[in-house]
Amino acid sequence: MKPAVVLLSGGIDSTTTLAIAIAEGYETCALSFDYGQRHQIETKAAQRVAKSLGVKDHRMAKIDLRVFGGSALTDDVAVPKQRSETEIAHRIPVTYVPARNTIFLAYALAWAEVIPVNDIFLGVNAIDYSGYPDCRPEFIEAFENLANVGTKAGVEGRRFQIHTPLIKLSKAEIIRKAVDVGVDLSLTHSCYDPSPEGLACGQCDSCLLRLKGFSEAGMTDPIRYATK
Amino acid sequence: MKPAVVLLSGGIDSTTTLAIAIAEGYETCALSFDYGQRHQIETKAAQRVAKSLGVKDHRMAKIDLRVFGGSALTDDVAVPKQRSETEIAHRIPVTYVPARNTIFLAYALAWAEVIPVNDIFLGVNAIDYSGYPDCRPEFIEAFENLANVGTKAGVEGRRFQIHTPLIKLSKAEIIRKAVDVGVDLSLTHSCYDPSPEGLACGQCDSCLLRLKGFSEAGMTDPIRYATK
Repeated sequence: MKPAVVLLSGGIDSTTTLAIAIAEGYETCALSFDYGQRHQIETKAAQRVAKSLGVKDHRMAKIDLRVFGGSALTDDVAVPKQRSETEIAHRIPVTYVPARNTIFLAYALAWAEVIPVNDIFLGVNAIDYSGYPDCRPEFIEAFENLANVGTKAGVEGRRFQIHTPLIKLSKAEIIRKAVDVGVDLSLTHSCYDPSPEGLACGQCDSCLLRLKGFSEAGMTDPIRYATK
Repeated sequence: MKPAVVLLSGGIDSTTTLAIAIAEGYETCALSFDYGQRHQIETKAAQRVAKSLGVKDHRMAKIDLRVFGGSALTDDVAVPKQRSETEIAHRIPVTYVPARNTIFLAYALAWAEVIPVNDIFLGVNAIDYSGYPDCRPEFIEAFENLANVGTKAGVEGRRFQIHTPLIKLSKAEIIRKAVDVGVDLSLTHSCYDPSPEGLACGQCDSCLLRLKGFSEAGMTDPIRYATK
């Protein structure tokens, strides 16, 4: 079996990406981050999902993104609620964590070089992407180039490849794909601002995109919401 | 004054780069990492140097590179000693930390985006570079491209620039430059394997390059060595 590193947050996108990598025959090493999220529900979802899909090795890197501030996901800044579809599609929100995917991919690359692994999977999506610049194909291509010039492995002739199987899918298509590859969607977590009991708020960008996806896929979201 | 983020380890190269940024009129924000180095002497050197040069803001990001292993700088792997000049120039050593400069620059970029700052200084050097692929101009260019496609700031029209004023200098030229821009070289630290009291070993690649640099510059290294 070919090995691969998969970045895993425990949301629908990264979980589906993990299941796709497994379906494609990769032996998966999953990498998650404890980056000072305002809640730990995300790291628990990643652990649940990794266990349910049978990853070979799951590591949680503790990294400090709060040292700089600048995002509603790591600071005491209010998470925006009930933004319109136009706003979600066109305005980069305060939940944007500066250079987050650059940092996450840099860690994935470090681990890939050590294992060694040439293939890295990332569940980014350029359609319903909530306006994050580091979810676009141009960014992925730029990182792949960086990986191949900036590592010992790249210089010695290994070619790193960043796989983004969801990059051109809508949220509804991702949800259908998740079901196809056997993801238990009740284990996934998307909300930026869950209740203390871990219930999704149903109003942040991430919940709105998730609910719209389920609606367009003609399915019911199996997770519980605080308000609905 | 224009602001800039400067990556600072407290070694000769990053310290000289910081002093150059200050001499060029930048107001400097210095970023150092506590990344599970086998010794804390490096983080102390960074603090000393930042204080002596009067940086505006110095932050220390605690990041976990030990989660993957793979380097003599973070693991219980012996640091190689007394390698020949040919070996140092052509063979990537076990002290190579996978994707280290990619991770460090990703953090610098995150902070630069928050401050906001367009200019990032990095003390890499492609001449006496001990064989690290992420010290080459191709790598810097690839990262600059990544920064401009992968951030909200880049998408909105800010242009990030990675400054590498030492990239084409020999160690001797860097040492002369350090003196020119007023660096107190006795505050800097280079050794990969210092004694418990903080004395440099004089035998690892980093010490050998440093000593060769001082010798070629016709100067005496002001720091103390355990063996000499």
